[in-house]
Amino acid sequence: MDLVLASASPRRHTILAQLGYDFRIEPSHANEDIDGIAPLDAPMILAERKALEVSCRFPESSVLGYDTLVFLDGNALGKPRDKEHAREMLTSLRGRSHQVGTGIALFHQGICLYSDQEFTHVRFREFTDGELLDYIDTLEPMDKAGAYGIQSRGARLVHSIEGCFYNVVGLPVAKTIAALSRI
Amino acid sequence: MDLVLASASPRRHTILAQLGYDFRIEPSHANEDIDGIAPLDAPMILAERKALEVSCRFPESSVLGYDTLVFLDGNALGKPRDKEHAREMLTSLRGRSHQVGTGIALFHQGICLYSDQEFTHVRFREFTDGELLDYIDTLEPMDKAGAYGIQSRGARLVHSIEGCFYNVVGLPVAKTIAALSRI
Repeated sequence: MDLVLASASPRRHTILAQLGYDFRIEPSHANEDIDGIAPLDAPMILAERKALEVSCRFPESSVLGYDTLVFLDGNALGKPRDKEHAREMLTSLRGRSHQVGTGIALFHQGICLYSDQEFTHVRFREFTDGELLDYIDTLEPMDKAGAYGIQSRGARLVHSIEGCFYNVVGLPVAKTIAALSRI
Repeated sequence: MDLVLASASPRRHTILAQLGYDFRIEPSHANEDIDGIAPLDAPMILAERKALEVSCRFPESSVLGYDTLVFLDGNALGKPRDKEHAREMLTSLRGRSHQVGTGIALFHQGICLYSDQEFTHVRFREFTDGELLDYIDTLEPMDKAGAYGIQSRGARLVHSIEGCFYNVVGLPVAKTIAALSRI
């Protein structure tokens, strides 16, 4: 089986390898615009777009696509524009729960073999303003949806989760195994 | 602050560094026998023993101790004796939830500044016998309480968790921050 991961994310590479799969990487060039899509449907739709775009270029391969979005009260949070925006986002998440949704899609020869999405609930600690500013000063929030990374220093912000941990990082484990059992 | 981690676990080293703390490592020589202790109290009691033993040797330092146990129906699961024992353990965990408890203790000059324990619920997938045997063949289960490691290939076995992910690996994040805020 020639498995392709349609993602440039090093975190997804790490998890898929950790699960024991052999694969190669072909980042997708798909359009990630979600205007007009219900936000809570976007992870699966974007995962399908990414996998399909790569599948069309590599028709002999099985192609896995993913997309991860962070939701607060049903609205998707993107990456922060600047430090002040990161501070606003993290303040809005403090002391309460939000959802991280990752869509997954598996395509072969342009045909969808599997698509689904999974949500994990993440509850943040009541961290102090000082902790928040210290975290922003690491610059870690700047390239991350929701302005934190649970797999690095951002672990400090998290009180607890309900669901798949790796789904928060960007790859739902059980659904990935289910998808790859199709081929 | 001179912070000492009383643990030889490379997984705990990684997490404590990830959280941004500077520390050095002095593994404990404490007795880890839990005969006569109620199993569900054992993580905190063993964490205290470990931190106290190291604190007596390094009285100028603040010493963090941890102990992690895996529980099924209130009984502690140790490390598997052999492959057959690993197969029995993982079969008993399949398709249901168990608990991972980590105790944490902070000592300075032989005095306890903080001690507590945290439990995370882990639900396993209904994995196949083939998946189970493949996992045992990696030998990863052999040195791990409960016969799996959620931070490596054993992630395949896990459906979902409730609580702190890093607590399953061996270090409860929020309680570690709470403990270290005391010094």
